[in-house]
Amino acid sequence: MKAIVVNFLLLFFITGICAQDSHQLWLRKKTAIPVNVICTNKSATATIAIKELQQGWQGKRGANISLLIKKDKALKADGFRLTQSSVEANTELGILYGAFELLRRQQTGQPITEGISNPSYEIRILNHWDNPNGSIERGYAGSSIFWHKDSSLIVTDNDKMLWLEYARANASVGINATVLNNVNASPLMLSAAYLDRVKAIADIFRPYGIKVYLSIKFSSPALLGGLKTADPLDTKVIEWWKEKAREIYSLIPDFGGFLVKASSEGQPGPQDYGRTHADGANLLADAVGKYGGIIMWRAFVYSPNDKDRAKQAYNEFINLDGKFHDNVIIQVKNGPIDFQPREPFSPLFGALKQTSVMPEFQITQEYLGHAEHLVFLSTMWEECLQSDTYQQGPGSTVARCTDGSIYLQKHSAIAGVANIGLDTNWCGHDFAQANWYAFGRLAWNNSLSSDQIADEWIKQTFYPDVTETKISALYSSEWQVNFLAPVKQMMLESREAAVNYMMPLGFHHIMSANEHYGPGPWWAPARMRADWTPPYYHQADSAGVGFNRTNTGSNAVSQYREPLASQFNSVNDCPEIYLLWFHHLPWTYKMKSGKTLWEEICYHYDKGIKQVRQFQKIWDKVQPYVDKERFLSVQRKLRNQTSNAVLWKDACLLYFQQFSHMPIPYEIERPVSNLDEIISNDMRRRR
Amino acid sequence: MKAIVVNFLLLFFITGICAQDSHQLWLRKKTAIPVNVICTNKSATATIAIKELQQGWQGKRGANISLLIKKDKALKADGFRLTQSSVEANTELGILYGAFELLRRQQTGQPITEGISNPSYEIRILNHWDNPNGSIERGYAGSSIFWHKDSSLIVTDNDKMLWLEYARANASVGINATVLNNVNASPLMLSAAYLDRVKAIADIFRPYGIKVYLSIKFSSPALLGGLKTADPLDTKVIEWWKEKAREIYSLIPDFGGFLVKASSEGQPGPQDYGRTHADGANLLADAVGKYGGIIMWRAFVYSPNDKDRAKQAYNEFINLDGKFHDNVIIQVKNGPIDFQPREPFSPLFGALKQTSVMPEFQITQEYLGHAEHLVFLSTMWEECLQSDTYQQGPGSTVARCTDGSIYLQKHSAIAGVANIGLDTNWCGHDFAQANWYAFGRLAWNNSLSSDQIADEWIKQTFYPDVTETKISALYSSEWQVNFLAPVKQMMLESREAAVNYMMPLGFHHIMSANEHYGPGPWWAPARMRADWTPPYYHQADSAGVGFNRTNTGSNAVSQYREPLASQFNSVNDCPEIYLLWFHHLPWTYKMKSGKTLWEEICYHYDKGIKQVRQFQKIWDKVQPYVDKERFLSVQRKLRNQTSNAVLWKDACLLYFQQFSHMPIPYEIERPVSNLDEIISNDMRRRR
Repeated sequence: MKAIVVNFLLLFFITGICAQDSHQLWLRKKTAIPVNVICTNKSATATIAIKELQQGWQGKRGANISLLIKKDKALKADGFRLTQSSVEANTELGILYGAFELLRRQQTGQPITEGISNPSYEIRILNHWDNPNGSIERGYAGSSIFWHKDSSLIVTDNDKMLWLEYARANASVGINATVLNNVNASPLMLSAAYLDRVKAIADIFRPYGIKVYLSIKFSSPALLGGLKTADPLDTKVIEWWKEKAREIYSLIPDFGGFLVKASSEGQPGPQDYGRTHADGANLLADAVGKYGGIIMWRAFVYSPNDKDRAKQAYNEFINLDGKFHDNVIIQVKNGPIDFQPREPFSPLFGALKQTSVMPEFQITQEYLGHAEHLVFLSTMWEECLQSDTYQQGPGSTVARCTDGSIYLQKHSAIAGVANIGLDTNWCGHDFAQANWYAFGRLAWNNSLSSDQIADEWIKQTFYPDVTETKISALYSSEWQVNFLAPVKQMMLESREAAVNYMMPLGFHHIMSANEHYGPGPWWAPARMRADWTPPYYHQADSAGVGFNRTNTGSNAVSQYREPLASQFNSVNDCPEIYLLWFHHLPWTYKMKSGKTLWEEICYHYDKGIKQVRQFQKIWDKVQPYVDKERFLSVQRKLRNQTSNAVLWKDACLLYFQQFSHMPIPYEIERPVSNLDEIISNDMRRRR
Repeated sequence: MKAIVVNFLLLFFITGICAQDSHQLWLRKKTAIPVNVICTNKSATATIAIKELQQGWQGKRGANISLLIKKDKALKADGFRLTQSSVEANTELGILYGAFELLRRQQTGQPITEGISNPSYEIRILNHWDNPNGSIERGYAGSSIFWHKDSSLIVTDNDKMLWLEYARANASVGINATVLNNVNASPLMLSAAYLDRVKAIADIFRPYGIKVYLSIKFSSPALLGGLKTADPLDTKVIEWWKEKAREIYSLIPDFGGFLVKASSEGQPGPQDYGRTHADGANLLADAVGKYGGIIMWRAFVYSPNDKDRAKQAYNEFINLDGKFHDNVIIQVKNGPIDFQPREPFSPLFGALKQTSVMPEFQITQEYLGHAEHLVFLSTMWEECLQSDTYQQGPGSTVARCTDGSIYLQKHSAIAGVANIGLDTNWCGHDFAQANWYAFGRLAWNNSLSSDQIADEWIKQTFYPDVTETKISALYSSEWQVNFLAPVKQMMLESREAAVNYMMPLGFHHIMSANEHYGPGPWWAPARMRADWTPPYYHQADSAGVGFNRTNTGSNAVSQYREPLASQFNSVNDCPEIYLLWFHHLPWTYKMKSGKTLWEEICYHYDKGIKQVRQFQKIWDKVQPYVDKERFLSVQRKLRNQTSNAVLWKDACLLYFQQFSHMPIPYEIERPVSNLDEIISNDMRRRR
């Protein structure tokens, strides 16, 4: 019966009955041009590929297109080969990905050149920080699509519909895995009742090639299993995990594996029993290994006792290199702290040489304006992926250190913390959809440019509602000049704008506590652990500002391979975008521009505001090209973004001015609020 | 005993022990240069004049200056004659005013030319809207200086000190009368206990020439006296008022008289008994007449039934011209509605030809940003005073129609609704002191320019704390260029800026209800009387905006004398500053600039913001010339002013855009908030 419902839904969906709204993401309904799809494979996945081509074809009317599964050594995993008349692949999924690529090229006006496409990473996974009660940690787009607000586990038709749409969207950009629950995991997630629901989800995802993973609580053997310990070397614990794995795989034979946040921010872990992260990870790896399961073990660990939080993940893991089993991947956030608007790359990338390492990016905008700010994150991820670690000589980029190009690693993977919820438009902000899209595209091809990704996304997402319009006419020069170009410019500039009005020049972690939305450089209540307060990070005093991580300070620079260590260590060579990350400098320090550090800070905040105001003008001018719903929704959010940017500037400049004792340059617009009022509003909001 | 205390306080005060702070107003403590004051008169008033000269002299060291009371027919009332070595006057008060003028000229670097100075108005009066419980209607500078918060009537030393300082400040600019309580009057004010306190105040004011007046509730004979009626023609009522007058004058022989708000906004009045305003006013006039008392009867009346509130005061009073007794003065607000940022002058000015008429200005900034916005009101009053009514041919300005130049009126007067409270700086905003100052100066000389007044005020108020500095050095070119000129420019531009960001082009009464601070053009709850709601005034619809007061509309234009009636009636001739006051026009109406009306509205709001932002820069740049306390206080208020100006613009443009359906010109900065959020914040604040 269940299978029938699923198939009915599948049919319902791919025949495209959905209304034309923001829910459709970059897969907007098109008036298809007839095409003749030839495919002998009758699998569910192949059927999807056929239907997608039939309903989305924008190429030659009546063209023939063959979908062929055949051995091709040039293709890795689910890679595919495109020709003028065929999609070829080793697997059904390769066929599906190829079909989506073909349609994408048609819809974005790119030529269909013959060639192959292999994914950069074997596992391209979303991390949902969704809780069993439907709430989402750092979620800004409504409740969970996986877990009900009332904690009911009943699988509704609406659930299935959403899961199907979600799976299709992921497949269309090559995402092939997902973690269904928060890294701060409930032990309940491994109970039979929850596993039943996980199975239901997995069944719907399967034709789209999405494997499900679960976050687990390390102490589950005690909390859920009733054991006296969760010690990874305890035989009963080992047995418990093996039995749990058997249970899961009996329900979901292609279950992906576990994601683990252990011994981090209060979560239990192997260190509670005097064991190492390797002991913990290997315990789980052994339990799921025989089923092909994977353990993704997070390196996001730090303790309040260390003098520099930025150094701790490296220090904790570097000595464990080579100690992890083959099916363990260490999941490392892009930067050493925590998804700040800008961080240098984590020094763990490339430094772990005998261990699989996967980047963790955050798609949800925890520190980047939530779903209120338009911030296209692709440029941030591109910056990280293209950062050169020098670990195996020049060109040892983070991308190449993690995708198997440089190190022989059994598995390669990349994770993105999802920004998806029940909101009609999935992501809260219509432009936040672009971040989901960009994550998928970069996970498939980590050398794609953000320009290309933005170009593709805009074309697909703002495809006008026309019938029988030729692509050539649609992408007329007028549309390109008046819509595509300015909107793309806005997207590509948007992350730098956010850095400018939030945390320019290497500032980090100066946001408002808890909700991580507005500014809060002052926040340092008594008895709060210092590494959770902004003054720990900005170190402002009358002498200057910034965190000294040079060899006269915490020496975090030494965790980077030369020539980076020396470059970051030298105030003259350190890129100014990282200046206050690595250096504590006098307010009067002379910048390359000739301005003082204080002035440069002021101009950066001011520039950020000017940029967002410009975004507003860009958006208001493109009104004729956008449907009313999305136009108004983005317009109102841009208004709030500017307003919030002004608050960031006022708060940070007025706060730091207390230390610099220097005037805000008179060319700059003056603050429009007062520091004491900003702070008391911030405190009131927190109460 | 009381007299001794007063004298002690007097001595204490005029020896200048006060700290140098914003409490000193424009009378900042100076290091006096020795002067030899010759005066044979030993009265309290003459003593004050002598001390003021001795403690404030900035002229030639050891100069001789004579204070002479002698008959001089060129002098009116308390006018005075200055020579190089003397102040001459008919009265002691004239001597005091002359002494203050002499000091003002010294301190502001003006030459002491020989000549006379006569006051434009006989009575130069402040109206305090202070309640017996210490609250102040439309007061933004703390509680009342006359009435205690706990309603205690005990006269404290602090009370006396304040009253003395207040009297001195008023005398220094020529103010010679004050109404101690709210026009929405409590009947208690005429009870014996309250009159005792009034007497105490009057005793302290007397040497400074300040006469006290009281606002009365018309129904006092019933409410306080226990009569069955307050009918002005009832003999018991007549007797009651006569007896009350006798009681008052026995305590305060120089009591000024009554201010009356009757049959207005729910206040009782003669119309409750089928009598006219003249009946009511004359009743009271007869009661106080034999003691030299005055009745100031307000023309601020309107009913919800009329189709145009702007016409009602005129209609109500024009037929009563000549019916008022000689000691009645009709007090007329500057404009026909209610102290809006800009109104054309009230058509009653010059139209009442056989009745004394006095202008009522509002010093407290009820509709002009309270004590938060820097708005120098002198330019607004100058605009009103210099408006030509044409009632007796060209040149029949409001000033000349009210000061006795044109009409033979027994009494001339001018009133200002005070902005004074217990705040250290008296007025809430340091620059609001300038409005108190300007009212006094214009009341003395209604042809003074705002430029001159601002110049004087700045020089006296921001007199640096220096010792033995020569005026010539103090007013060095550097100070004039860097401080005086920009600050004066800011003041002179400030009212037009407020008009621009609040209610440009003739908009009026579109503020938030009740508190009259922020924008509220949308406010129109069900069952609210229409003339209390903004849509009644702006009349915005898809066809256009503005109140049609031409002969095709309410024909309010007909209340003005030709050529004004025709000028206001003609859309081409009507000054654009009054355009939407008199005309309902299409959004696309072509303005003189070539822009559409809608665009012109947008640009005006935007200009207002640019102006205030410029004020912020001006102020920040003059920091070296201002003490820290006042610098910071004004700086923080300017920040809020800009923030509030942006809110005004966003609210009004987004609200009216719903009717215009036209884009905000793209050169203009986009709104940074959303209309629904603005409105819900407004509603929440009101709850």
